Amino acid sequence: MADKEQKKRTTVSIYGQQYTVVGTEPPQHVKEVAQYVDQKMREIKKRNPYLDTTRLAVLTAVNVVDEYMKMLKEQNKVEDTNGRDRMTGDD
Amino acid sequence: MADKEQKKRTTVSIYGQQYTVVGTEPPQHVKEVAQYVDQKMREIKKRNPYLDTTRLAVLTAVNVVDEYMKMLKEQNKVEDTNGRDRMTGDD
Repeated sequence: MADKEQKKRTTVSIYGQQYTVVGTEPPQHVKEVAQYVDQKMREIKKRNPYLDTTRLAVLTAVNVVDEYMKMLKEQNKVEDTNGRDRMTGDD
Repeated sequence: MADKEQKKRTTVSIYGQQYTVVGTEPPQHVKEVAQYVDQKMREIKKRNPYLDTTRLAVLTAVNVVDEYMKMLKEQNKVEDTNGRDRMTGDD
């Protein structure tokens, strides 16, 4: 009962460091997320070989938030257009 | 001409460090992204006061990717449903 809400501990490796993530997410999701961050860090390091790990991690977060915000803005545009379409019917 | 494609340099401050982002994005967008990352880092630091900055930055990236992936999965679900609706018409 309420089994899905039970907190799980998932240990993942990101850029050679171990992290234990505690939460209700399925371990498979946590592993996918970790793999994505690890891959992004390695990509950015390749383009900027002199970055130290802290700056590399911050820039990885910046890149991901950039993608995320662009998607949110894109979605809002779509919703705006839907809203406008609906509104023309009310005129 | 091709003015929008011209690369811009935007300097932002994230968690007390300066970063110069070079790209075609409007400076306003870069600043929004930086502010989001800065805020997330401070939130996570509050909940985990003993994290060093590198681990804090990595966990910030993990949190953002988590939100991003959930949104992508949510969107795919919506697209699947749309697809199914369309397909029932072909039967």
